[in-house]
Amino acid sequence: MKLKKPEIKQNIKQFIVKPGRKVNLKSFDTGWAQNEGMKLLGEERSKDLLVEMLENDRTALASVQDVLWSARSHAVLIILQGMDTAGKDGTIRHVMSGVNPQGCSVHGFKVPTDEEHNHDFLWRYSKVLPQRGEIGIFNRSYYEDVLVVKVHPDILSDLAPDIGTDAKKFWDGRYKDIVSFEKHLVRNGTLILKFFLHISKKEQKKRLLDRLEHKEKYWKFSVADLAERQYWDQYTKAYEDMLQATSTEFAPWFVIPGDYKWVARTAVAEAIVTAIKGLNLSYPKVSDDEVKLLMDAKKKLEAE
Amino acid sequence: MKLKKPEIKQNIKQFIVKPGRKVNLKSFDTGWAQNEGMKLLGEERSKDLLVEMLENDRTALASVQDVLWSARSHAVLIILQGMDTAGKDGTIRHVMSGVNPQGCSVHGFKVPTDEEHNHDFLWRYSKVLPQRGEIGIFNRSYYEDVLVVKVHPDILSDLAPDIGTDAKKFWDGRYKDIVSFEKHLVRNGTLILKFFLHISKKEQKKRLLDRLEHKEKYWKFSVADLAERQYWDQYTKAYEDMLQATSTEFAPWFVIPGDYKWVARTAVAEAIVTAIKGLNLSYPKVSDDEVKLLMDAKKKLEAE
Repeated sequence: MKLKKPEIKQNIKQFIVKPGRKVNLKSFDTGWAQNEGMKLLGEERSKDLLVEMLENDRTALASVQDVLWSARSHAVLIILQGMDTAGKDGTIRHVMSGVNPQGCSVHGFKVPTDEEHNHDFLWRYSKVLPQRGEIGIFNRSYYEDVLVVKVHPDILSDLAPDIGTDAKKFWDGRYKDIVSFEKHLVRNGTLILKFFLHISKKEQKKRLLDRLEHKEKYWKFSVADLAERQYWDQYTKAYEDMLQATSTEFAPWFVIPGDYKWVARTAVAEAIVTAIKGLNLSYPKVSDDEVKLLMDAKKKLEAE
Repeated sequence: MKLKKPEIKQNIKQFIVKPGRKVNLKSFDTGWAQNEGMKLLGEERSKDLLVEMLENDRTALASVQDVLWSARSHAVLIILQGMDTAGKDGTIRHVMSGVNPQGCSVHGFKVPTDEEHNHDFLWRYSKVLPQRGEIGIFNRSYYEDVLVVKVHPDILSDLAPDIGTDAKKFWDGRYKDIVSFEKHLVRNGTLILKFFLHISKKEQKKRLLDRLEHKEKYWKFSVADLAERQYWDQYTKAYEDMLQATSTEFAPWFVIPGDYKWVARTAVAEAIVTAIKGLNLSYPKVSDDEVKLLMDAKKKLEAE
């Protein structure tokens, strides 16, 4: 059985990681707006244009969500990944405000609890998957288990199964588990869209310093974030391997240029709206027999 | 220990069910807008005024939610109850669109599963309570266990504990369980606000007929809803008993006039915004020691 491919609008296809293709993140421009985007949209109007698109997408999203919720035939799983400060929280706030919170859930994932550690690595994510009718957003996800855990394999040390002597085999096993898991979800009616918010190391520095220059933003800063920055190259490599191994036709990865927030948010919104529209959902049909029952009910009610 | 009372704005206090007071729903005007409201606000401007208030409340809600989410000290539990067509879904959509879905969850509850039935009646609700930092909305709730179950006690029949020979004692036991449960939640940092959307039987007829007059709304109509309408008086009595037994200083019930949707939505929004503001939350403080660490981090980052 061939799995359904999400429908993706032409203007967003450029950000998809082609399945099976070797990934070099350097070839994905974090500052797209100032380069390729400028050529396409023109200098003056590009920001206004994208902000307007986002506004339209937000309205469209509220409307497609209503059909999704009513039809109850498909779930939508949106995964957001990115380095610290890449803009995951802001993207959720700006893209998803406006949707009806009834039918939309957002999950973040912290350091696993003992109970979570004592299950397979997909277990805790599986528990909070969106049900049919819902949009579920994972702010970080099981992909952390092949990112932060790969960069810091000591996190695994006292846990079974052990990484063993062949690390490559271990991580390949995890990629395969993820692809099979997603295949299973798609087969059972879930639309999966995965976004890597891609920022440059320079942009991260700017954003971290910004938090350190405004007293009211101090509490958002974790010294641990800065420690992770030292592993930038290792993370980049882990992202590349992961994107290459897990971007599929049925659950594609988008590498979203993240240095300009108004680009990232609009690109994510465009992809979500077109993919949900592409499901071609409609409000539930009512059969002739049911209509007859309803008309009887109507008569009874009018006669009250 | 005295439990914290939610702070309620003067204009909304009129809708609170005074703890311990006998409740007669006839004395709560479903069409408030055309009577008391008209006197207060004046005929011409009343709708415009309330719609404008709702707009302001929505903005205010997004901002207080951000502090709530950051402070992580309190959870907010909002309970919506009402007869069929009372406007629960619409209230959620209109009041809560605009909040960041990260930090807001909505739960509806269907016929209990076997597993749920095999636990105490509060179990399934307890599992999905909002955590600190979150707003949780229950679209129907454990109050159904003293409403629909009280009107149709046969739902209980093959389940332990049995209703026994003293029905009053059985239901009083459930009210007490609920009050103790809510006391426990408030003591542990949950703000609880409970809204009964109060519509007239006439208004329900109008709304049901409206669904039966528009083909595109057919699928929303359940013939079962019409069957429940026959139990209107029994439901009214069950609501009165429940409101009287479970409206407390620390977790008050609001009887919201529901015949005009723009009144109901604004009243609910006003209550939520003022009560969350009343928690006097602030963004996390950063200690002097932490600031020192941050300034070290800043130096390191600048020197990169």
